[in-house]
Amino acid sequence: MRPIGFVLIAVVVLAGVVAYMAPAFGQADGEAVPIFGLKIPAGYRDWRLISVAHEAGNLNDLRAILGNDAAIKAYREGKLPFPEGTIIARLAWSYVPSEENNQVFGRPQSFVPGPAPDWYLQFMVKDSKKYAATGGWGFAQFDKDGKPAAEAPLKNCFPCHQAVKARDFVFTRYAP
Amino acid sequence: MRPIGFVLIAVVVLAGVVAYMAPAFGQADGEAVPIFGLKIPAGYRDWRLISVAHEAGNLNDLRAILGNDAAIKAYREGKLPFPEGTIIARLAWSYVPSEENNQVFGRPQSFVPGPAPDWYLQFMVKDSKKYAATGGWGFAQFDKDGKPAAEAPLKNCFPCHQAVKARDFVFTRYAP
Repeated sequence: MRPIGFVLIAVVVLAGVVAYMAPAFGQADGEAVPIFGLKIPAGYRDWRLISVAHEAGNLNDLRAILGNDAAIKAYREGKLPFPEGTIIARLAWSYVPSEENNQVFGRPQSFVPGPAPDWYLQFMVKDSKKYAATGGWGFAQFDKDGKPAAEAPLKNCFPCHQAVKARDFVFTRYAP
Repeated sequence: MRPIGFVLIAVVVLAGVVAYMAPAFGQADGEAVPIFGLKIPAGYRDWRLISVAHEAGNLNDLRAILGNDAAIKAYREGKLPFPEGTIIARLAWSYVPSEENNQVFGRPQSFVPGPAPDWYLQFMVKDSKKYAATGGWGFAQFDKDGKPAAEAPLKNCFPCHQAVKARDFVFTRYAP
């Protein structure tokens, strides 16, 4: 094999690595939300887990909070504020009893993800310059069809998150 | 640069890929459980999300179900039975109200992960030959200190999972 062969191998291998890792780095895709101009970051469903939660009351959802590599690193190192480029993803599904599980357990104890609510996907994106007016965070929400939230609900994000300014405006703690 | 240089580049690049991916492939670590002889798979906390759940009743926990690459691929392709080498990880935390969140929301609606219960970590490992007597699955449980469960509770895993034989003995469905 001539040198060019090895160059090709190296290029192919590198291209493979880049292709494998690309979705984890959040390229924007689809329609953007108002105010913050954010799109759904590609590959967010492959991100690592930060925590889970159940919001009862009017929301009544089960949720998973995922983070891109910058988010996970900062959480695990306990570093605040979160670095530029941090993205935190919040997925929510309606909170429904699992009839099939409950039949096995013999009692109504199991609650699992049901259909996606209108607030299916939310993202917080750290860009201190771009989003200086909102604590350095951009906020986004999308339904299950990728439709962005309207301007009014997006305006409510930051006022509520201000309550946790001491944790860089992020509610979720890392679940070990 | 001579050909050997390109070979070295390719090897170094490949080694980097392997090192990057290694934790996702579950090297065993720590003390093994009885019966099934399984250890905690290294890197499981970096695996991708399958679903979340709330088990009420006596367990009263919030849980995240993660999968290694084989598990995620099979779930997303809707393929049963799960392939050899599949590992499904179930992390559980006690279900506790978040006082700090509830103060912000003005009502008791937010439930988050609390301290780890004794059944903190569970794993199902697919090895059709080794675990032929239990549907091709090995079962494991560990507390937060990595202490394996005793023999008696592990004997209860498969009898219960037999109820979902049609889904290759796995309760959890994928949350999109």
